[in-house]
Amino acid sequence: MLEAAKELGYVPNALAQRLARRKSGNVGVILPFVPKVHLFSTYYFAEILSGIGEAAKVCNYDLLLIFREPDSPRDYAKLFRTQKVDACIVLGAQNDSEERAALTELHKEGYPFCLVNQRFEDEGYLTVDADHESGSYAAVQHLLACGYKRIGFLNGPDAFSSSGDRLAGYKHALEEAGLLLADEIIFTGNYSRKSGYEAAKRIAEGIRSKGIDAVFAANDRMAIGLMDGLREYGMEAGKDYGLIGYDDSDSSRIVSPKLTTVSVPFYEMGRKAAMKLLATESEETGNTILPVELIKRETT
Amino acid sequence: MLEAAKELGYVPNALAQRLARRKSGNVGVILPFVPKVHLFSTYYFAEILSGIGEAAKVCNYDLLLIFREPDSPRDYAKLFRTQKVDACIVLGAQNDSEERAALTELHKEGYPFCLVNQRFEDEGYLTVDADHESGSYAAVQHLLACGYKRIGFLNGPDAFSSSGDRLAGYKHALEEAGLLLADEIIFTGNYSRKSGYEAAKRIAEGIRSKGIDAVFAANDRMAIGLMDGLREYGMEAGKDYGLIGYDDSDSSRIVSPKLTTVSVPFYEMGRKAAMKLLATESEETGNTILPVELIKRETT
Repeated sequence: MLEAAKELGYVPNALAQRLARRKSGNVGVILPFVPKVHLFSTYYFAEILSGIGEAAKVCNYDLLLIFREPDSPRDYAKLFRTQKVDACIVLGAQNDSEERAALTELHKEGYPFCLVNQRFEDEGYLTVDADHESGSYAAVQHLLACGYKRIGFLNGPDAFSSSGDRLAGYKHALEEAGLLLADEIIFTGNYSRKSGYEAAKRIAEGIRSKGIDAVFAANDRMAIGLMDGLREYGMEAGKDYGLIGYDDSDSSRIVSPKLTTVSVPFYEMGRKAAMKLLATESEETGNTILPVELIKRETT
Repeated sequence: MLEAAKELGYVPNALAQRLARRKSGNVGVILPFVPKVHLFSTYYFAEILSGIGEAAKVCNYDLLLIFREPDSPRDYAKLFRTQKVDACIVLGAQNDSEERAALTELHKEGYPFCLVNQRFEDEGYLTVDADHESGSYAAVQHLLACGYKRIGFLNGPDAFSSSGDRLAGYKHALEEAGLLLADEIIFTGNYSRKSGYEAAKRIAEGIRSKGIDAVFAANDRMAIGLMDGLREYGMEAGKDYGLIGYDDSDSSRIVSPKLTTVSVPFYEMGRKAAMKLLATESEETGNTILPVELIKRETT
């Protein structure tokens, strides 16, 4: 009977089947949407998605990508209610009221989801993060060991837990060396290359008049933007000032001079998040924090 | 009534609705699956996907990514029969019998699909491609104009129409200059960096004993792998031999020396493919071929 059905090209209506089993066979991935930004071409998202894709394939799921616009309502639960997805992974989430409300709803309804690289403390959400506090501590400690004495910090926005982690690591290393946190040498970008480039003006001034002799940037894109920007002020990374990025992106390896950075296992983070949700033999629950590693190159 | 339903958190069962309308709200993207290869981190796929994502968002579709394993059956039509997708875009398709059979079935059944960067001549499939013949012609002509006289060619596999196009462009430029095609200076990689690196041995020998003084590589990844490989033989691109890549990837811009290459509008190709399928006011049908552009840098 099944054979005959197969020969006739008959396929049991999978939507109806799934309707009964409440199973779409899809794992949703929620991504920030920024018009004209080539999201998949950023090392961060590309690596996490590659890891998620690998695990989804192994577990026999397809990947449904859902772009979240910054100002549109975030009805993640609807994806489950309308059975578009069986589980979902949230990337690029920020700690704001809209996001918190959407996640609280998912949690209350018991829909399986996992966050990557963002923690909401005390919520008990399934999370895969990296140890950015230790990574930042190691980065700043390395700069101090190189003899730099006044280390500027180009951080990302507050709304990401990783920004808070990096600030804590930066602070820890400074305190240990008996140095005070000085707000005037802490700068904020938005993790884009452009924001690094634009920070160059203020940082060039900091190098000239406030004694900054090295900068720790919260990702490679900002570090490389800053490097380009400071070059226009006649300042060369690794010569006129020390510079450390964060991510160990492809660009950090081929830019000239090669960028000292902190390697983050984004691929593994994505893979682990998907395995937590999809694997029949579940991996650990709760919050997983993966280690990061300082990679010394030519800018320090 | 609708308001009341909304307040109660009631959502009309979208699967049932879609079942009636035969509409999933998803556009499928079929991608090659290679374990351990970080697919989204390749410039080629990242850019095409970014373009597709932009158009899907504008047309209010979600993106369902489906990974195709090299040796598994390719039942693309099933995606439509089971109503997982309303339309689909096929990336990385090769001209082999399995692929042809899967596409023929889609075509016969009238399911909407579009190919990107791959043509199947005379089939009349919806396709978005780039003018790789002209691009390759311009690349080789530029090498000849730089005074290089014996130009090796590192091409990709036959099964991609772009490989055939590039060979045609290479041949055309040589013939116009009164030069003969010599099989012994035509090499084949698989578009990976590693395959470029591995070709270095044979090409170093060609430079030493067969008078090769420049190489045209069919993509940047192979060109950069070759550059690294030939460096181990003491040969520097732009000094000891001329080199042109293809794609104008991020890497080509930051590698040292900066790679002369051919810029391909991958983002626009992805965007156009999705718009052809999803936009209510349809763009042109059939085969669209977008122009490419030679970008001169330091390796020629």
